Amino acid sequence: MKIARFNEGQLGIVVDDRYLVDITTTVGEDAAMWPPIGATRLIANFGRLKPVIEAALKQLPRMPIEDVKLLTPVPWPNKVIAFPVNYHDHGREMQASYRATHQGFFLKPNSSLSGANEPVVLPNVPTREVHHESELAIVIGKQGRDIARDDWQQYVFGYACLLDMVVRGREERVFRKAYDTFCPVGPWIVTADEVGDPANLEMKLWVNDDLKQHANTRDLVLDIPGMIEMASAVMTLYPGDIVATGTPAGVGKVSDGDKVRIRIERVGEMTVDIVTGTGGATEVFAQPYTPDIIKQK
Amino acid sequence: MKIARFNEGQLGIVVDDRYLVDITTTVGEDAAMWPPIGATRLIANFGRLKPVIEAALKQLPRMPIEDVKLLTPVPWPNKVIAFPVNYHDHGREMQASYRATHQGFFLKPNSSLSGANEPVVLPNVPTREVHHESELAIVIGKQGRDIARDDWQQYVFGYACLLDMVVRGREERVFRKAYDTFCPVGPWIVTADEVGDPANLEMKLWVNDDLKQHANTRDLVLDIPGMIEMASAVMTLYPGDIVATGTPAGVGKVSDGDKVRIRIERVGEMTVDIVTGTGGATEVFAQPYTPDIIKQK
Repeated sequence: MKIARFNEGQLGIVVDDRYLVDITTTVGEDAAMWPPIGATRLIANFGRLKPVIEAALKQLPRMPIEDVKLLTPVPWPNKVIAFPVNYHDHGREMQASYRATHQGFFLKPNSSLSGANEPVVLPNVPTREVHHESELAIVIGKQGRDIARDDWQQYVFGYACLLDMVVRGREERVFRKAYDTFCPVGPWIVTADEVGDPANLEMKLWVNDDLKQHANTRDLVLDIPGMIEMASAVMTLYPGDIVATGTPAGVGKVSDGDKVRIRIERVGEMTVDIVTGTGGATEVFAQPYTPDIIKQK
Repeated sequence: MKIARFNEGQLGIVVDDRYLVDITTTVGEDAAMWPPIGATRLIANFGRLKPVIEAALKQLPRMPIEDVKLLTPVPWPNKVIAFPVNYHDHGREMQASYRATHQGFFLKPNSSLSGANEPVVLPNVPTREVHHESELAIVIGKQGRDIARDDWQQYVFGYACLLDMVVRGREERVFRKAYDTFCPVGPWIVTADEVGDPANLEMKLWVNDDLKQHANTRDLVLDIPGMIEMASAVMTLYPGDIVATGTPAGVGKVSDGDKVRIRIERVGEMTVDIVTGTGGATEVFAQPYTPDIIKQK
């Protein structure tokens, strides 16, 4: 099943990749609720709600998916976890001396989450470059702590495409990755049963028509069972938690007017506009920084 | 006003520092709701709810505060922001070459939040030390982005004591600070009107009977208006967001059986038990690490 969030926060099911069915009231949610935890709750209760949704899909009207605005699927999870330097080729291009296996994770704020039909807004930091990072997102389906590696599948609800946007620099990683709209997730969540083995997914990212990143999830340094094991060793994972699994080589600058397209096999594809905003200036980025990977080019 | 969360997730008002009044149903919340966003919503709607609460306080029964279990006041905010190396004396003891003013913030996960009457559970990482860090927490009251320094007060709902617990090491800072129970906040939130100037608060931390940390918030490197300005330059702040403002010198190891007491003038005091857990082992902490500040002693 493919679960989307759209327009004013309604919850929907994608049918035949072309239609959307509004199931907000079917699952007992209210799109206007604040904070927006309807999707978090839907995922937590999905086992009970799935037959209700399946029955409703036969009755409810379908709308063309191009007529809606796709929002981020889970806007207010417990947390967004991200694994740094988790493909060897990206580690080499960043000249990073470590890998995720011995470094652990960082976090992105919920407020950075945005959707497939929302632009990435570049902050007013003229001294710096903003880079795209193409990633597979895991969406957690079940609460757990100290999860054994072999049990990982029980805790995965589904998958999505994720762009981990970042201001390059040497400051705190979280800070550079935390801007509003710096975590597009979408176009929707595909439940795990429809994806099959997540360790063999082709992932591509284009800026406009140029293919910039191309990898397969089999090349992850810390694999998906390992990420579930490591994250849950430290933290209780909750339904709706998002895990950004890391980016392969080919990261680079985005500019106003660019279109960034990410496609992951059996998961989906989305194209996000890059626009320049007026806010976001901060003294932290007062000093210029040129990334080594740019100096080399 | 002093706002607490207790027992099974009920919301309460502290009266005369000795009694608690349950206002859960008065403010239209349900302690059993998942995810637990009642306190987040109470803070967002506090302007409208305050007169309702004040009227109810005259009618509702009081219970002795020692008869309840105090939980973390806001268990599911949008985010928990934290400023690293924000007192010069702590920067010196850590031999850190930077300060928060030019480094930015990091994040703690919602899942790390715990309360005044809940223990800090040490993970099973025998190669490492877990340290206490005493901090003033700011609780955000109003949504905002790109907030001007001079407008900071409009966005602050209140204050609390916060312990930023950390596994010492050189790995990703967020990872080392993310364990469940590694962010006790409490004993409750004191609204800003009762605290007055937050730039002149004495803060002390004891481990058992030994005074380990003693500072005044006037010595913050990046002050509170500056933290609101910097965080909101990057992220939309939401009601309920928590800002850990940084720790002064004197951080050190905690061990099973210790009692960590934090007291902040006009904000409150809480004593948290340290206990040893069985979970939390991870290959990230396989290698031993001895902090420089310990080597010096």
